[in-house]
Amino acid sequence: MRYVRTVTSERVRKALAEFVDERDWAQFHTPGNLAKSISIEAGELLELFQWGDDANEARVREELADVVTYCTLLAGRLGCDLDEIVLEKLAATRQKYPVDRAKGRSTKYDAL
Amino acid sequence: MRYVRTVTSERVRKALAEFVDERDWAQFHTPGNLAKSISIEAGELLELFQWGDDANEARVREELADVVTYCTLLAGRLGCDLDEIVLEKLAATRQKYPVDRAKGRSTKYDAL
Amino acid sequence: MRYVRTVTSERVRKALAEFVDERDWAQFHTPGNLAKSISIEAGELLELFQWGDDANEARVREELADVVTYCTLLAGRLGCDLDEIVLEKLAATRQKYPVDRAKGRSTKYDAL
Amino acid sequence: MRYVRTVTSERVRKALAEFVDERDWAQFHTPGNLAKSISIEAGELLELFQWGDDANEARVREELADVVTYCTLLAGRLGCDLDEIVLEKLAATRQKYPVDRAKGRSTKYDAL
Repeated sequence: MRYVRTVTSERVRKALAEFVDERDWAQFHTPGNLAKSISIEAGELLELFQWGDDANEARVREELADVVTYCTLLAGRLGCDLDEIVLEKLAATRQKYPVDRAKGRSTKYDAL
Repeated sequence: MRYVRTVTSERVRKALAEFVDERDWAQFHTPGNLAKSISIEAGELLELFQWGDDANEARVREELADVVTYCTLLAGRLGCDLDEIVLEKLAATRQKYPVDRAKGRSTKYDAL
Repeated sequence: MRYVRTVTSERVRKALAEFVDERDWAQFHTPGNLAKSISIEAGELLELFQWGDDANEARVREELADVVTYCTLLAGRLGCDLDEIVLEKLAATRQKYPVDRAKGRSTKYDAL
Repeated sequence: MRYVRTVTSERVRKALAEFVDERDWAQFHTPGNLAKSISIEAGELLELFQWGDDANEARVREELADVVTYCTLLAGRLGCDLDEIVLEKLAATRQKYPVDRAKGRSTKYDAL
């Protein structure tokens, strides 16, 4: 079975790669620097929720975009596919959190 | 023009939504809690690079997957599309970092 | 034996408490919000090292100050003393990283 | 006026320096690595508040201790005093958040 979308991650990856190439920025994008960048942008996203849950949605989208941008660049750098690694990790998480024990509880797996 | 992929973000979103529904976890996934979760997972990713750049790639993929999982859940919660917000933000970033001034430099836009 | 200092943490704690009281901000300083604030400020500190180690020292001091400010407020909220908890944790860390195995290595304790 | 305490930051700094020296770990403690470490530990602290405010206090103290440990090491590396930089930053923050406009509000200074 095949899925079809008109705006795809493939398109995003190409746009990001072009953006980076034009600026000759790949030299800065070591895996370690990209991991730092993900944390930095995650902090900016979190700042919108610092004192409560009523964050400005347009700002949330912008900061979330920054996090995902660096995630996409890191995946590209590692030569892995985001969809694939999320599904792989999900399979492992399903094992750690069986429905019968985890249902309706936010308890961490090692305390379930 | 249409892009075709066999593993798509649509498939990932469905798998994550099913995983969350089975466990009745949507109640914990407020935007604020998801923003915290992204920061927490970003910290775990960063830990792999704490003392240097030679991180274990399998572990990097796992932690990157966790970050992207929560990003996908937050996007779902906000009703926005990750591809779309990344492309929108990229358009804005292109303006802030014109090729002629930003090329080969890691300087922040406000100091370019 | 007693140590004497002219600028002490006691003085800092009082100055911070006064600052918060004047603005009636204790209502926002739940432990969870302070934990978020520490992460947010840690991200701003990290941003100074995003692309390399040559950060502006004056800026590093400012962002480090922000992290420590929220740490001090969280300690105050919990009624614990920063010196004491650091020394307690250090005693535990000494056990996890015995000198003979940990010397000159950045390996995590569970892989030593 | 002089403040006297029996457990002081001076004592903590000495204990940490000794711990690091015994293990020959100063080589790993570049400012950039310490900034990463602060973010990583801040993430572990935040994890205790991931789904709500009812964190285990003993665990909060441990993770807060880790954050402050790395802050102390970074201050040592920069040759600055934590008390001093917190007070300096506080003076600046007082200007940005005048009591009459900031009282009882969590609004960021640029929107006050």
